Amino acid sequence: MERLKDKIRRCGKIASGNVLKVDSFLNHQMDIRLFEEIGWEFKKRFADVEVNKILTIEASGIGIACMTARYFDVPVVFAKKNKTKNIAGEVYTSQVESFTHGRVYDIMVSKEFLGKGDRILLIDDFLANGKAIEGLVKLVKDSGASLVGAGVVIEKGFQPGGDKLRRQGIRLESLAIVESMDEQTGLIVFRE
Amino acid sequence: MERLKDKIRRCGKIASGNVLKVDSFLNHQMDIRLFEEIGWEFKKRFADVEVNKILTIEASGIGIACMTARYFDVPVVFAKKNKTKNIAGEVYTSQVESFTHGRVYDIMVSKEFLGKGDRILLIDDFLANGKAIEGLVKLVKDSGASLVGAGVVIEKGFQPGGDKLRRQGIRLESLAIVESMDEQTGLIVFRE
Repeated sequence: MERLKDKIRRCGKIASGNVLKVDSFLNHQMDIRLFEEIGWEFKKRFADVEVNKILTIEASGIGIACMTARYFDVPVVFAKKNKTKNIAGEVYTSQVESFTHGRVYDIMVSKEFLGKGDRILLIDDFLANGKAIEGLVKLVKDSGASLVGAGVVIEKGFQPGGDKLRRQGIRLESLAIVESMDEQTGLIVFRE
Repeated sequence: MERLKDKIRRCGKIASGNVLKVDSFLNHQMDIRLFEEIGWEFKKRFADVEVNKILTIEASGIGIACMTARYFDVPVVFAKKNKTKNIAGEVYTSQVESFTHGRVYDIMVSKEFLGKGDRILLIDDFLANGKAIEGLVKLVKDSGASLVGAGVVIEKGFQPGGDKLRRQGIRLESLAIVESMDEQTGLIVFRE
């Protein structure tokens, strides 16, 4: 997706520790026009499959997931990171190790909103080591729902998550795959 | 907004401790068609003012904010609840006491994305004691931006937040104001 790659080149910032900062348009400030194009691109890439629900994870997956759900005309469920008073009753849970936050946390989805017969598309903003997507895949499996595929906006191709998910047979669509990035020169190379 | 009130009557669940559970369509599973109507309703109610950015708070404000931002054609910034590696440098911070979670947490927005000249509309899903909106108002004031108003989907009119904000001169638009709710009978009464 060329417009996305242009945006990453122009506005992305490479920070130490292999961090690609895209918080000016993707995961702190959100460029809604770009999100509409991203949603439409996911719809095109998954046009051949039936999807009845999109599953994402709070917080930065939610905006992308909502803008994508418009084109599929389906609801979005977001996995929560903290147990709240508002999730009573039974939940599916999974553990996720965050690359960005450097810690392990639980995610959960109420059993009411995920189950047999559901055809789930996972959507998230970032894929590095793939732990968030793996956590979501576990929730889908535990619920008995079918996993249709996963769409991520930016995959860091030099980290193992994407290839690991593909080896597991998961249909993964990444709209921009960063093959390498250089903190000194600011150069970002995308996978063709 | 009648369709919203119908949805609350049909799908909302009253739980002990004055909790109105609307997680089947608003803040865990998200009804994207309804969100589009909500976004359009906010646009109508704030049609007379200039807005160049929407500010919300993670996690459940993000979906509503994104669907609303489409109609204003502006970006969304969401205040974060936890400091991450991805927010380097200077941030505006504020403390929020959560009714739902029963604890106090810090919220923050990068100074890059909020400042003088910005005309900010706040958007959130719920208003009870108003602490989240108050926290966002403080971020806007600290940044030197102008506050245009605040839009919330559901206001619990029997808790003090909404009236407190109105007394402070904040233009508050609530799409459904719950005047009272009865856990025993399930009856929900809306303010006219």
